[in-house]
Amino acid sequence: MQDPVFFDLERNRLVLIDQTCLPGELKILSLHIIEEMEAAICTLQVRGAPAIGVAAAIGLAVLAREIEASQDYEARLLAYAGRLRATRPTAVNLAWALERMLAGPHDPENLARQALAIWEEDIAACRRIGEHGSALLRDGDCVLTHCNAGRLATVRYGTALAPVYVAAEQGKKIHVFADETRPLLQGARLTAYELAEAGIPVTLLCDNMAASLLREGGIAAVFIGADRIARNGDTANKIGSLGLSILARHYDVPFYVCAPFSTVDLHCDEGGQIPIEQRAPEEVTQAWYIERMAPRGVGVYNPAFDIVPYGNITAFITERGVLPARDLSK
Amino acid sequence: MQDPVFFDLERNRLVLIDQTCLPGELKILSLHIIEEMEAAICTLQVRGAPAIGVAAAIGLAVLAREIEASQDYEARLLAYAGRLRATRPTAVNLAWALERMLAGPHDPENLARQALAIWEEDIAACRRIGEHGSALLRDGDCVLTHCNAGRLATVRYGTALAPVYVAAEQGKKIHVFADETRPLLQGARLTAYELAEAGIPVTLLCDNMAASLLREGGIAAVFIGADRIARNGDTANKIGSLGLSILARHYDVPFYVCAPFSTVDLHCDEGGQIPIEQRAPEEVTQAWYIERMAPRGVGVYNPAFDIVPYGNITAFITERGVLPARDLSK
Repeated sequence: MQDPVFFDLERNRLVLIDQTCLPGELKILSLHIIEEMEAAICTLQVRGAPAIGVAAAIGLAVLAREIEASQDYEARLLAYAGRLRATRPTAVNLAWALERMLAGPHDPENLARQALAIWEEDIAACRRIGEHGSALLRDGDCVLTHCNAGRLATVRYGTALAPVYVAAEQGKKIHVFADETRPLLQGARLTAYELAEAGIPVTLLCDNMAASLLREGGIAAVFIGADRIARNGDTANKIGSLGLSILARHYDVPFYVCAPFSTVDLHCDEGGQIPIEQRAPEEVTQAWYIERMAPRGVGVYNPAFDIVPYGNITAFITERGVLPARDLSK
Repeated sequence: MQDPVFFDLERNRLVLIDQTCLPGELKILSLHIIEEMEAAICTLQVRGAPAIGVAAAIGLAVLAREIEASQDYEARLLAYAGRLRATRPTAVNLAWALERMLAGPHDPENLARQALAIWEEDIAACRRIGEHGSALLRDGDCVLTHCNAGRLATVRYGTALAPVYVAAEQGKKIHVFADETRPLLQGARLTAYELAEAGIPVTLLCDNMAASLLREGGIAAVFIGADRIARNGDTANKIGSLGLSILARHYDVPFYVCAPFSTVDLHCDEGGQIPIEQRAPEEVTQAWYIERMAPRGVGVYNPAFDIVPYGNITAFITERGVLPARDLSK
């Protein structure tokens, strides 16, 4: 599979796999206009906290080269950075990547260099997450994951799935159970797709079946990604992560959060300070369906994320190693 | 709304609201052939433990009158009863209703009388469940429910929703949060539909959002139905009930199981003895969707029910009153 986020330097394009078309179609987007980039992030054509950060960095570099000759370069660049940052509120990698892009000189050449560095570091960090995490897996283990924190959510390897990919390289047979992850079905559409493509056995389940599966006793560990981690370890991740963490704790199954350090928000003391994006009711009532599946006018509760309290997290698996869930600022 | 299960004595038909067509279309089925009745139960055109029991009873009475003149009446009747009983394994009301039908004389007239008695008793039991349960609700309460254990799952009033309907009659304002209930979306399609039709405010959520909702603290109680209750109180109900019970306990929210006594299986000591129906993978991978939502060949875990341990149940609300979750054989 090609990288889901890529910088086409020659044509000056942000190249993305359109994740809204998977698993039916492998559609490639090639973007150089701010409105297209905003739409790609808002409509989840690119999604996954690390992938969004890398895409925004490459996007800003592409835009910088597009406006290179204009008189009001600096003002336009900062406006574009602000628009990209405003696309989604919860994942901190987006803000982190744009801050880092703007920390050095703002000329197009340096921005392109920075974007490539962020892209490469994402690959390296995910690889190390995979190495640290695979040490926790034994041949024959079954693991449970939620949403998609795999290759498609990063540049390569993924976060929550990186341990699985590295374990598979090492010859371990790992079976992944994937929550389908309502409302947007990232588990059914993306996790099942990328694991099947990699030849790793995967079994799909509805989110509400996880309790039964954990009760049966065959799951060695739960691996999830993260959209933002507070200093105290409270972790924002795809809606459903909170419930899964309570179930894992109830059944005494280790619950690991896999993320690069760029996901830690040092300005955020605890989970209550993390903004939770509320998304459109139609995602629940009609997205993907043949016909509307709920009566018109019904109210809808549709937060995109929830917060896993640090007490429910066995450990964080990061590029720096496997860390207990405590103060991450040290 | 008309009763979802009805005995048309004049035309000798089992009359059902086809629940697979809701909320888009109110389609009425009028059945007098065994294959149609089997299909109606297997494909969930009629569903909900009490409604299935009543439908099987009426179905058998209709079939008895159809074969009245035949020589091998008794053999055919028993074969039909066996076929109806085999349609779904988990809900005990189905077996209970058919056993009761066959406990007395097998002539068509008596079977019709028995079926009507079962139908009427279901209405009375649900009404009493509603009266007992509404005493637990205060004006302004929000409650959370899973699947559909409402009017559509019974003849009238429902089980889990009966307290809400009776409370509304008493002038209390109750707001219902309804899990959509994957894979077949009984919450989105049926609970939201019947509550909206009754003018009771309802907010839909995906199953994996319940943890966030309970954590926010606004839910006074969880009400669910039951497909089979073991003597010790372990309760089989729609997949997702187990997880919800663990979350409710975690957040100290009362968790009530609402069911008529016909749902208690006195032959079953504990939940481990209850057979759990496994259903087709396509319910998860493509039912309702515009296109297949998971890659071909992916494994699917699709149990239709799970078991709530009695320790997670605050009380049972039955036609006999509100009973603590302990030995139900007394």
